[in-house]
This record gives sequence, C-alpha cells and structure tokens, in this order.
Amino acid sequence: MPDLKDVPMNILIVYAHPEPRSLNGALKDLAVRHLTAQGHEVRVSDLYAMKWKAVADGADFLNHASGERLSYARASRDAFAGGLQSPDIVAEQEKLLWADAVLFQFPMWWFSMPAILKGWIDRVYAYGFAYGVGVHDGDRWGDRYGEGTLKGRRAMLSVTIGGRAPHYTDRGVNGALDDLLFPIQHGVLFYPGMEVLPPFASYMTDRLSEAQWPSVAEAFQARLDGLFTDAPLPFRLQNGGHYDSQQVLKPGLGHGASGTRIHLVLPGEPEQLPVGLGSPAPDA
Amino acid sequence: MPDLKDVPMNILIVYAHPEPRSLNGALKDLAVRHLTAQGHEVRVSDLYAMKWKAVADGADFLNHASGERLSYARASRDAFAGGLQSPDIVAEQEKLLWADAVLFQFPMWWFSMPAILKGWIDRVYAYGFAYGVGVHDGDRWGDRYGEGTLKGRRAMLSVTIGGRAPHYTDRGVNGALDDLLFPIQHGVLFYPGMEVLPPFASYMTDRLSEAQWPSVAEAFQARLDGLFTDAPLPFRLQNGGHYDSQQVLKPGLGHGASGTRIHLVLPGEPEQLPVGLGSPAPDA
Repeated sequence: MPDLKDVPMNILIVYAHPEPRSLNGALKDLAVRHLTAQGHEVRVSDLYAMKWKAVADGADFLNHASGERLSYARASRDAFAGGLQSPDIVAEQEKLLWADAVLFQFPMWWFSMPAILKGWIDRVYAYGFAYGVGVHDGDRWGDRYGEGTLKGRRAMLSVTIGGRAPHYTDRGVNGALDDLLFPIQHGVLFYPGMEVLPPFASYMTDRLSEAQWPSVAEAFQARLDGLFTDAPLPFRLQNGGHYDSQQVLKPGLGHGASGTRIHLVLPGEPEQLPVGLGSPAPDA
Repeated sequence: MPDLKDVPMNILIVYAHPEPRSLNGALKDLAVRHLTAQGHEVRVSDLYAMKWKAVADGADFLNHASGERLSYARASRDAFAGGLQSPDIVAEQEKLLWADAVLFQFPMWWFSMPAILKGWIDRVYAYGFAYGVGVHDGDRWGDRYGEGTLKGRRAMLSVTIGGRAPHYTDRGVNGALDDLLFPIQHGVLFYPGMEVLPPFASYMTDRLSEAQWPSVAEAFQARLDGLFTDAPLPFRLQNGGHYDSQQVLKPGLGHGASGTRIHLVLPGEPEQLPVGLGSPAPDA
C-alpha cells in the first residue's frame, strides 16, 4: 500500500488576509509549494484578492426580486435547487466538491474568523448544500455532524494568533483554543460532514522574527504531511446513536467531561451505538 | 432611589439583518419602541441599511498608502492615535462611547454572527480603543476583561436561532448556547470592559407563527426592562487576582468547572483576590 501522502489529492486552501507579505500569506504560499511538490493539486480561494462579497443578501439569488421579502434560508434553498445561485457562490461550492481536503488559513480576529471568511461560509454554505441535507423526520435531523455533502473530505484550520499560548490553554484567560474554535470546527466543518484535524496555531505572530520562521515552517510542513493520515478530532456522529431523539447526548456518555468536550468520543466509548435506544450505560 | 429603569439612559442597538420584515427587524423595532417609551434615548446602527463595509483592509486608515505593507493592528493603532481612521469607524466608536448599554440583534448564522456584524467588530474595535488599552508590562496585560474603554456599559445579545432549544442545551448536539456565544460574550463584549447580560435567544424562528409573536415580544420586553438591573454574567476580571502572571487561572479557582465556565466566578469565590499572589486556596 502506498504511503497516503504520495497519492495525489485535491486540496483547496481558503485564505483570508489583506496583506500578501504577511505571515498568513507566507503560510499559504508554503502550503501551496509543499503540497504541489508532493504531487497534489492545489487551488486557492484568496478571498481578499478575489474581492469576495462578504455580505449575504438578496443579490445572492438570481431569482430574488428587489423589494421582495427575503428569508435568506428559503431563498438559498430555492436558488440552490433551481440553479439560480450567484455564480461566485457556485464556483466555491464546486471547489469544495472537487477537494479531498480543505485548509483554512486566517488570522484569529476577535476569537473568530475575519468577516470576509465568515461571509464565505454564510454565502457558500447554501441550504441543500451544507444544511437541510438528508431526511428530516420526527427522529432524524438530516445528515449533519459527520454526514452530509462534504463527507469524505478533511479540513484543517491554520490560524495565526497575536497573543501568547498560555492565554489559550485550558485555564488561560482567553478560553481554551479548542473551545474558541468549537463553533467553527464542529459547527462549520464537521456539520456538513468533513473530518476535522486538530488546528495548527501560531502564537505571538505580531512579534515573530525572521529567525523564528524556519521553526514555524517546519512545524506547519509536518502538519501538511499528515493532512490525510493524522487522526481527526473524534467528534461524535449525530446519527451514530450517541444522541437521543431530542438531539441530546444520552446519559452515560461523556462522563467526566463537560462543555464542548462532551461532543468528543471518549476513550473506551464506542464510535457507533444503536440508534434510538435509550441509555447505553447506566449514568454513573 | 428611583427605579433604575426610570432613569433615562442611552442605548445603542447594533442590528444585522437583510430583511426589515423579519423577526430580527420586529425585535429591533420593538426594542426601539419599548425603550423610547420609557424615556431612554435609542440609536440604531442598522448595518445592512447603512451598507456597512464588512471587510477590514487598508482603506480603513486615511494614512495608509495603497501598496504599502499592511499590518492591520499596527495601522489601526497609528490611525486611532493620529485621528486618521475612516469616518464610518469613528462614528461607531462615538456611538459606543455615548451608550450606557449596547444591544446586538442578529440571527445566529453558523453558530456566530453574520459577516456584516463580524466586520463591524473587526473594524470598529480599533487598537487603542478596544484592545491595546492600559499598561502592558511583564505582569500586567493591559485593561481587558472587565476593564477598558467600554467599562461601565452593559451589553446584551438578542439572537434568533432556526434550530430547537434542546439542541443548544448543555448536552445538546450543537453545543451549549453559552459555549457557542463565549467567543462573543467574553471575547468581544467583556474584553473591552462591558458587563454582559445573559443572552435573549429565540428558537425555531423559521417556524414562528404570528400567534407566537406576543409571547416572544413579552419575554423580550421583560429582558429589556432588566437591561440596567439584571445581574450580568459573572465573568472573572482579568486584573482581579484570579489569573496568575501567565494569565492562567490560579489553582483552587473554578474547581468542579471546566471549559468556558471556569471563567465565571463560582458561588463562594471572592470577586477580587490579591493580585500577583499564588494560589488563593489549596487545589483540591
């Protein structure tokens, strides 16, 4: 069996920084170079260079009349189903479908993505594409969290952070990095089905010197080498039997964890459980 | 002593929805009406109507030459200090300084704010205004988390959510609402000094009927009535002695909690502790 990193793959880099000569730009360029040299095919959505329209509105739908009352979700559903989405949205959806892995390169601004990247999510993640997928009935809430349109793809965040690493630890003042990224890693990447790798985080990036760049580059390359082989975060599948019919984690699971971490499969817990049954184990 | 809700206050509503005839629009209108009727002065930043520029870039600074290398943070610092910020940014900063309370009305899109509102934060929260405030030396990391430019103001999120309430409970599949909002409530609102009230959340808003509106309106009005009297979330002050010199929560504090909740003062813990000392209590 060939080493997975030698199998040519398609990789989409979604890159959001206004300055090409930034650390973010350097990391994006490094990723393109390194992955291409390994035989992968790489495409970049450089949101600032593309002048990506960040703001979701009625102009995203070719069939939306000016002055017509807008429910963005319903309009998105109808335009997606009817082939009437704005072409810039369609182009990004096609890139996502083409990709085997998606890398997001951006600076943490106010503990989240820059607005231009949030606007890429808001607009590209159409109803019928990223949500509202699969059967929705009394007990089943569609294909999401590990299933959905983007299943079979991997995703990784590469974030630059002005602050210091201790501030982002489990007891650090800013909150733990995994907690801060949960809305993105779980709610944006895992939701439509992608497997999510642990993030690559660079700290104190405003003070990074030229001398420190080689060590950052080396660490990043190691993560790029593991893009298809590293273990993803063990988020629980929505339809894997861990949640009850109200989409609440069943008693007995996640014992000893709390907060966002109860949504990670704990060591010793089965990845899949019978769907629809009650508690898989007594609640200790 | 007069009832606090009878003292005229200044309230800024930052509102982000593309459709005036939406639930978000109705909640915003209700807030304007209700607060004005009580004698408060209300101003609204209607980001869609204002065609707010969502994307942070060099054009935000009057002294930034096209083609010049952009460090957004440094450029923000220099422009803020030198009075060279874009006028739309200055206008919003003035509204924040004018306000006694700030209400944010928006739909949860992908477990966060719409891009246009994120872009309001990214751009209005200038270096020297919302961060980089106060003394930074070896042990002190400036005035943030409970201190800073916006100290003395209150803030509240009012969010509409398409999904169902159980999905957002402590064990719900989407993650607990407080965890999902932590990057905003702690990292955006508490960071520059505002006291943060618990959020007002409306669920299943895509299916809300006309018949349900009065109960939503009544619940929202009750929260508006408590804007200056309800207890804020008891986030820990950065400079209140709870964090050590590395900005890590001291041993013995937050015992029994984990995740984002360790940053809330627990019952029985003092709000302030001597700064710079080690553990206030043995780590149990």
